[in-house]
Amino acid sequence: MKTKVNQVKTWLNENRGRGAKLLQLMVQENSTRGNESGAQAIVIEKCRQLGLELDIWEIGDEDLKNHPAFSCDRHNFEGNPNVVAVLKGTGGGKSIILNGHIDVVPVGDSKNWTHDPFSGHIEDGKLYGRGATDMKGGSAALLLAIESLIKTGIKLKGDVIFQSVIEEESGGAGTLAAVLRGYHADGAIIPEPTNMKIFPKQQGSMWFRIKVKGRAAHGGTRYEGVSAIEKSVRVIERLQQLEKDRNARITDPLFNSIPIPIPINIGKINSGEWPSSVPDLAFIEGRMGVAPDETIPSAKEEMENSLQELNQTDEWFRENPLQIEWFGGRWIPGSLESDHRLIKELSASFQEIIGEVPVIEASPWGTDGGILSSVGNTPVVVFGPGITETAHDANEHIVLEDLYVASEIIALTIMKWCGVSN
Amino acid sequence: MKTKVNQVKTWLNENRGRGAKLLQLMVQENSTRGNESGAQAIVIEKCRQLGLELDIWEIGDEDLKNHPAFSCDRHNFEGNPNVVAVLKGTGGGKSIILNGHIDVVPVGDSKNWTHDPFSGHIEDGKLYGRGATDMKGGSAALLLAIESLIKTGIKLKGDVIFQSVIEEESGGAGTLAAVLRGYHADGAIIPEPTNMKIFPKQQGSMWFRIKVKGRAAHGGTRYEGVSAIEKSVRVIERLQQLEKDRNARITDPLFNSIPIPIPINIGKINSGEWPSSVPDLAFIEGRMGVAPDETIPSAKEEMENSLQELNQTDEWFRENPLQIEWFGGRWIPGSLESDHRLIKELSASFQEIIGEVPVIEASPWGTDGGILSSVGNTPVVVFGPGITETAHDANEHIVLEDLYVASEIIALTIMKWCGVSN
Repeated sequence: MKTKVNQVKTWLNENRGRGAKLLQLMVQENSTRGNESGAQAIVIEKCRQLGLELDIWEIGDEDLKNHPAFSCDRHNFEGNPNVVAVLKGTGGGKSIILNGHIDVVPVGDSKNWTHDPFSGHIEDGKLYGRGATDMKGGSAALLLAIESLIKTGIKLKGDVIFQSVIEEESGGAGTLAAVLRGYHADGAIIPEPTNMKIFPKQQGSMWFRIKVKGRAAHGGTRYEGVSAIEKSVRVIERLQQLEKDRNARITDPLFNSIPIPIPINIGKINSGEWPSSVPDLAFIEGRMGVAPDETIPSAKEEMENSLQELNQTDEWFRENPLQIEWFGGRWIPGSLESDHRLIKELSASFQEIIGEVPVIEASPWGTDGGILSSVGNTPVVVFGPGITETAHDANEHIVLEDLYVASEIIALTIMKWCGVSN
Repeated sequence: MKTKVNQVKTWLNENRGRGAKLLQLMVQENSTRGNESGAQAIVIEKCRQLGLELDIWEIGDEDLKNHPAFSCDRHNFEGNPNVVAVLKGTGGGKSIILNGHIDVVPVGDSKNWTHDPFSGHIEDGKLYGRGATDMKGGSAALLLAIESLIKTGIKLKGDVIFQSVIEEESGGAGTLAAVLRGYHADGAIIPEPTNMKIFPKQQGSMWFRIKVKGRAAHGGTRYEGVSAIEKSVRVIERLQQLEKDRNARITDPLFNSIPIPIPINIGKINSGEWPSSVPDLAFIEGRMGVAPDETIPSAKEEMENSLQELNQTDEWFRENPLQIEWFGGRWIPGSLESDHRLIKELSASFQEIIGEVPVIEASPWGTDGGILSSVGNTPVVVFGPGITETAHDANEHIVLEDLYVASEIIALTIMKWCGVSN
């Protein structure tokens, strides 16, 4: 085994450029929602070259849409498939799912980017672009790990099921579709950008939209109206208080070093049509974090009650109650015991490659891990090379060294988990 | 003269239905910005029937666009003309401009309207619809007053110059175009919705747009980013404080009964693209009131300094300063001494018809009066039948009785001002 591990490590060290090149090609394909096909084509070609068993399909059948965990406001999946590629084991070993999402969030204000958001520009050992960190870098690390095993002639006992899914950023319909298509395993690694930390627990989350009513008036007599913007400030303050209250209850040591374990993010506000009219309507959209030991319905109820309280205490809201809608994205929280064998073997591999004990924390965001574990009954750990802080930000980037090191750690973990035939 | 006045009053009493019908036709034509032609066609037809000298033209020539008082972000005026209709006097009297704008603001959330916003629905003596009060009702009162003088055979000495202009709601380019075309007079009445109050002074105003920067991040690690929405709340608070400070300085007794003499209205906010991203950009748009004795540049400077202070005291804004842009609408403030002969004659007519002393105040909003007086050298009083509170609001309406009474007052004022030949 030691010789084989060394062969893999040597191959990976000699073929780092392949990982960088693959990631660059993936980043250069804009795969924002509805545009995933170009990046998937790069993945498909790579899997074909590796000789994996490919399963490529457009999601969106009735089974998926009727599933209780389906949470998605997208209607058209045509031309933007899910991809699963299997490296069959020789038998007798544990199987593993390696799951990455291909979709990326919008680029934001492109003026804030130094390079084109889809340049894949490499400078000082970093690769730049939307998705570099979240999480094409993770997927490239998975593919590089698989390639190293194949190229060094390792025969695994258990199956390796590589998944490149769509829709993670909007609620996990891609991974849910893969689960419903029958893909389960004894364990799963999702290389989301964890800064090389290991996350046995994943925060859940869901999106909300709050409708705030005002009363229109001419801006010159604004005292005759009620500003939906001013009332929205009250709602924002209420959400900030709710976030504070909810986080004060978190005692899990895995959250110890996280400033706000389960944030409530206010991501959008739109109000008003005319500078000199008092706005009569505002929409606030955001994302509510859900603790790993909490359920989605109980978190929703807490926010609904909090807004209900505001409806009762504020004179205007008493007559014009706030309305909340849960729409679009929803990520089920996930939780694996910290002493699960998958965590242990990943940690051991980490220590073997890096020479340090890994940081084990709870994830600050939802991942597809909740669906894999709660619907797919697959134990999940989240661990990847990307930089948490640059995810969703301008100038998103990844440190290529981390990608290579993550590939080594993952390759080693796969060997231990799936077992190697002689 | 007394007989003639009585003839006019009698005619107006017997022909109230004409005013209601005319207003209904005008309201039924949606004349939001860029769509003014239909309502102008109604006005043109009425003026043609009255035998007035019509001047119909598309504004937007170089003289207009190069004028320092021109403040307009509209590029295409084709097909939506300005209308001026003159009733020539016999000579030797004072001339009067009767100015109304045909453009109306957007309807806002149409769900808040009981009837279609362009229904012109009449119920309980009220006529409903966008523009009923602001200010097609005022224009209808002017036309009814002119009609009463013509139909009763009154020969005026001075010219009556009726104007139906576009673009008042966006900064007065229509009235400015009429001034530059050569229309001046010894006095002017603008029947904006004053609740039958007389406004010798008009507040000025202008539009602003503030750009607020944030730093994007994933919503799950929102503490890594800086929310442009949260920073916008700081800006909103600062604008509220500035409004308070500016209004504390207003001592003019004409503002005594106005809760906020020169409001700063925050009319729009837009921020964020994605519920689970920290928004990195916000735009706040609004309208700043300018006191009658203040200049536009000095008011702008005060707001710019106030934001500059925030840029210096807030750590984030120090590195990412707020940017302000003055765009679109701008209304020059106007001021006429309260004992001007035009005010006196209007007040006397008011008292003669209603039997009460009129309320004389400063206007809570900008009107085209600033352009008529400062560019056109025409003394201006603002007085009209509409309901200030319903302007720009859902279910905008006018009390038809007020329209009829305003017609009488205006007809009487015209007779006194222009003089009647025997």
